[in-house]
Amino acid sequence: MKSLTIEQTKADDKQYVLHSWSKQKNLNPKSISKAEGVFFWDENEKRYFDMCSQLVYLNVGHNHPKLLEEFKQIGEIPMAAPAFATASKSELARKIIEKAPDNMAKVFFTCGGAESNDHAIKIARMATGRYKIFSRYRSYHGATFGAGNLTGEGRRFMVEPGIPGFIKFDTPYLYKEVIDFSSEEEAVAFYLDRLKNQMLYEGPESIAAVFMEPIPGSNGVIIPPKGYLEGVRELCDQFGILMICDEVMTGFGRTGKMFAVDHFDFEPDMITFAKGVTSGYSPLGGVIVSEKVARYFDENTLMTGLTYSGHTVSTQIGCATLDLLEEEKIVENAARAGEILAQRLDALLSFDSVGQVRHIGLFAAVELVKDKATKEPIISYGMDYGKDPVGLMSKFVSLLSENGFYTYSHESSVIIAPPLIISEQELNEAMDIFEKVLRNFEQEYLFADKTLTVK
Amino acid sequence: MKSLTIEQTKADDKQYVLHSWSKQKNLNPKSISKAEGVFFWDENEKRYFDMCSQLVYLNVGHNHPKLLEEFKQIGEIPMAAPAFATASKSELARKIIEKAPDNMAKVFFTCGGAESNDHAIKIARMATGRYKIFSRYRSYHGATFGAGNLTGEGRRFMVEPGIPGFIKFDTPYLYKEVIDFSSEEEAVAFYLDRLKNQMLYEGPESIAAVFMEPIPGSNGVIIPPKGYLEGVRELCDQFGILMICDEVMTGFGRTGKMFAVDHFDFEPDMITFAKGVTSGYSPLGGVIVSEKVARYFDENTLMTGLTYSGHTVSTQIGCATLDLLEEEKIVENAARAGEILAQRLDALLSFDSVGQVRHIGLFAAVELVKDKATKEPIISYGMDYGKDPVGLMSKFVSLLSENGFYTYSHESSVIIAPPLIISEQELNEAMDIFEKVLRNFEQEYLFADKTLTVK
Ligand SMILES: Cc1ncc(COP(=O)(O)O)c(C=O)c1O
Ligand SMILES: Cc1ncc(COP(=O)(O)O)c(C=O)c1O
Repeated sequence: MKSLTIEQTKADDKQYVLHSWSKQKNLNPKSISKAEGVFFWDENEKRYFDMCSQLVYLNVGHNHPKLLEEFKQIGEIPMAAPAFATASKSELARKIIEKAPDNMAKVFFTCGGAESNDHAIKIARMATGRYKIFSRYRSYHGATFGAGNLTGEGRRFMVEPGIPGFIKFDTPYLYKEVIDFSSEEEAVAFYLDRLKNQMLYEGPESIAAVFMEPIPGSNGVIIPPKGYLEGVRELCDQFGILMICDEVMTGFGRTGKMFAVDHFDFEPDMITFAKGVTSGYSPLGGVIVSEKVARYFDENTLMTGLTYSGHTVSTQIGCATLDLLEEEKIVENAARAGEILAQRLDALLSFDSVGQVRHIGLFAAVELVKDKATKEPIISYGMDYGKDPVGLMSKFVSLLSENGFYTYSHESSVIIAPPLIISEQELNEAMDIFEKVLRNFEQEYLFADKTLTVK
Repeated sequence: MKSLTIEQTKADDKQYVLHSWSKQKNLNPKSISKAEGVFFWDENEKRYFDMCSQLVYLNVGHNHPKLLEEFKQIGEIPMAAPAFATASKSELARKIIEKAPDNMAKVFFTCGGAESNDHAIKIARMATGRYKIFSRYRSYHGATFGAGNLTGEGRRFMVEPGIPGFIKFDTPYLYKEVIDFSSEEEAVAFYLDRLKNQMLYEGPESIAAVFMEPIPGSNGVIIPPKGYLEGVRELCDQFGILMICDEVMTGFGRTGKMFAVDHFDFEPDMITFAKGVTSGYSPLGGVIVSEKVARYFDENTLMTGLTYSGHTVSTQIGCATLDLLEEEKIVENAARAGEILAQRLDALLSFDSVGQVRHIGLFAAVELVKDKATKEPIISYGMDYGKDPVGLMSKFVSLLSENGFYTYSHESSVIIAPPLIISEQELNEAMDIFEKVLRNFEQEYLFADKTLTVK
């Protein structure tokens, strides 16, 4: 196609495109004129560090030459419906199983994160014959009706009245917990006891699965206390419940290991994935199932499917992406760059407005507060979704953007999740911008008398 | 990527891939070694007419050189998350609105059919403030939880217990109706009266939308009686209910017009689409909304979204596909070839086993019966899903396949929906095969004494 001019792009966008999570009226979306590696340039040739990898998916960075090259090979593997065996689908499934925890055996492919979670729910129900599904508050699993019902925050409300049997429990979020635990162990014992209690009162024999983001992402990169996930695994084992980890955001290197679960000492029964598997270059997601779950479907019909389950082009791009991760040691780079990011973030704790920093690999959040002692947040849950009354968080995020640091925030936390190929120098430059902007934000807005006049 | 050998492809497929709608144990999926236009070749170099366009999506045929060429341009339009305006997303949205019914204004993009229906449900609920959703028996809308709850047959059962507020009504299927109507008008009056009654008893003020495939596809290409869809539109208008047409299968030329609704005298409030928009070359779907629905979201937040809403690559392939439809007059060809198909199908009525033929453009079904007078089906609803006790329908479909005519069946209907680029000669050759196989099937199996020993 001939590319439209920026003006025509914007005019057509305004007239014809419905944008997610927004009122359409006063939208003024940016347009990207050029992009490379960790950078993109807007229509005014202004350069940005893409510090959230778009929506935490562009793990190999913008316009990676090897993936663009792969698109030139499209057509060499003939396109086929799910019932066929194709080279790219077979190869990608094998590559994924080789990288996944040892107990994993097969892959069901989808086109994105939400579809993956919808299918994981169905697979869990079929494999167990049970119908209740546990998931957590402070989680996001996607916008279709299954994934939406899993979701533990306001983005669920649009799929209510809800599906019977979807139960929520709490995410340990120690920084905000009113109980002052003496240790992580004590906290873990508390949360696991609550969960066990809830399972018992719901009737464990009716619970098919527990879904969790091992590290909730869009709710602010909330890292679990030591031993918590392993404890959930034990509860699941005790009651014959499947444990399903949503690694849509964390999978394929984001945390400095291939999967987030690789940081811990347990194996889930299923993993859902999307984003990183193609770095977003082609829509693809899926469900990885354990040997035990796979064997169930040898003899029993897998009663679900999608026109594009294992799409030939998307799985081909997936193969190329996973090859790239190895060839360019991208996961190793995420781990190494993650250490630098950790240092830079820990140093931010000297700021009066920085309540907590959370980081694992290149997956991080900075939680801002109005008052470090009381931990009074800038936005707390329920004020979110465009309701930040003073506009302080959006002010901070737009100051970052004005200074060339592109990312987004959730409640009072700013997400930091750059492409995994970021160099030490690029990361330091970006974090220099962050510090400068934060200093300015504190002086000019957060701790200034004029705070209440922002917006 | 280096392509795997056929043997390795099959071995990895067996070991690592979970296939839809199947027991995995004795699967022996075909592999496509080569494909072009309406043909593909299996691993033994056997050639097939692809008479179902894979899953009724490969409308421009296999390996279309212009679409393969378009993949070489990937990267020229920078990849961006939904919040950005991009050239390919803007252009495709404009092209779609230009082709859609006059009342249509904006497009929300997804990655496939099911996701589109899930989002249409959410959009309808937001725009109306109502929660009940009507859809029909004998419909398929997809496998996610929203689309699954819309679905009016057994493929819904895996998403049950169902979402509150999803109500089903009957699809007019005159061939199978026990009432012997004197005319289509009489039948329409009957079905509309039933529907109105059901709306009244459900409380029209709580009904957000009526979903329908204007021509149910995978349930056997069931063409509505004259005036029925217009009558549903009137009922919707009377009660302020949105009418949503699922054109995932029928959209973009399948029926010989751009959309199936173009054959009738009404405008829906929304259209969901997928397959044909890219001919399946890249995963893409969406929801087209009317001016009225679009205006609602000017001032009200569209509370839904997907990481890949308006994916840059998929929308670029969508633009190229729609250009191709125009350049090569593909919809016109579907209409012209559809007339030949109609003649060939009508001629089949002389067979003792052909109960009904249904066709519109290149979207058709042949319904087989054991007895023309009693209309006794080969499989009736409830015997389906691998439960055909005698295996007659699968026998017929595999005989077709052995003779180079690749398609699938539903209950007693065989789907015929070749790529829209099919030539008159190709279509006649394929239908010659169909006739030959049907004659053989009648003699050797259906009307032979040994019927009951098949399988
Ligand atoms: C953890 C998690 N799960 C699921 C999803 C949904 O993925 P998608 O938007 O591709 O449907 C997201 C999206 O951000 C996510 O972060
Ligand atoms: C009418 C209709 N709607 C929705 C779908 C679901 O589409 P997908 O498989 O892309 O989710 C299909 C699939 O065949 C369909 O025929």
